[in-house]
Amino acid sequence: MSAHIIRPLVSLDYEFLSSVVDDWWGGRPVRALVHRIFFDHLNASSFAIGPSDAVQAFLIGFVSQSDPKVAYIHFVGVSPAARAGGLARMLYEHFFNVVSAQGCTEVRSITSAVNTGSIAFHRKLGFTLLPGSGEIGGVPVTLDYAGEGQHRVLFRKAL
Amino acid sequence: MSAHIIRPLVSLDYEFLSSVVDDWWGGRPVRALVHRIFFDHLNASSFAIGPSDAVQAFLIGFVSQSDPKVAYIHFVGVSPAARAGGLARMLYEHFFNVVSAQGCTEVRSITSAVNTGSIAFHRKLGFTLLPGSGEIGGVPVTLDYAGEGQHRVLFRKAL
Repeated sequence: MSAHIIRPLVSLDYEFLSSVVDDWWGGRPVRALVHRIFFDHLNASSFAIGPSDAVQAFLIGFVSQSDPKVAYIHFVGVSPAARAGGLARMLYEHFFNVVSAQGCTEVRSITSAVNTGSIAFHRKLGFTLLPGSGEIGGVPVTLDYAGEGQHRVLFRKAL
Repeated sequence: MSAHIIRPLVSLDYEFLSSVVDDWWGGRPVRALVHRIFFDHLNASSFAIGPSDAVQAFLIGFVSQSDPKVAYIHFVGVSPAARAGGLARMLYEHFFNVVSAQGCTEVRSITSAVNTGSIAFHRKLGFTLLPGSGEIGGVPVTLDYAGEGQHRVLFRKAL
């Protein structure tokens, strides 16, 4: 694993990552989620693997300012070329350790109801699915969570 | 001013605001900027005026987690029907007071180079324009700040 050093996410990473994330998502327009403020002002517990002009994987997470016991993972991306190498798991586990040391007792995250890969991945990492206001394909979802028609699965993991 | 009570921005405000902000911006798609995490996890210093199903104005701002002396204003919106009533100024000044009491010594914000109304408004409130890497219409801009071709004016105000 020595080739995969986890380092802080920094402003310098923004240019490259904002230019590639849509491609990493197979053309789905996710760039608006990777807003520059996460690199400039909300990166105290965000991490990356690889150099700024060739990031292999990154995680944007922060401690909730509404409830400092709660940490939130906003976005995780892995370069298609680096997939299935365990980088996402490394980043999640590093985040768990860092925010736990800062006093957080739980981590939250969300995903789309259609993203069955993400749901399976979160379950493997020990996340549970929060009860929702509806169900899609046997999965509990909070209806309209991210706007009209934008249903989301809500995850929680105790630290 | 008694009709204009400033209150904390809460999760319950999300549904209404996410459904109206594009209209408030004359059809410009800004909804992705008004992400639910700002209502659920980054709302400790965000504020609104009006009831959740008929918000008149709101400000999303937070203390930087990278530098706790810096506060950042991410998004401010005023209903077209409530414009020119001083609500935006009330929200900005309330935010300055709140984050100043929390130890912040400066506030930062950004806007598009074409948004001359926003630039004039920030100047009136005492913001200065940071030196940029380019200039558009006599205004210093940081080129590609928010991605390729997305030039931004960067503001700073000492508290």
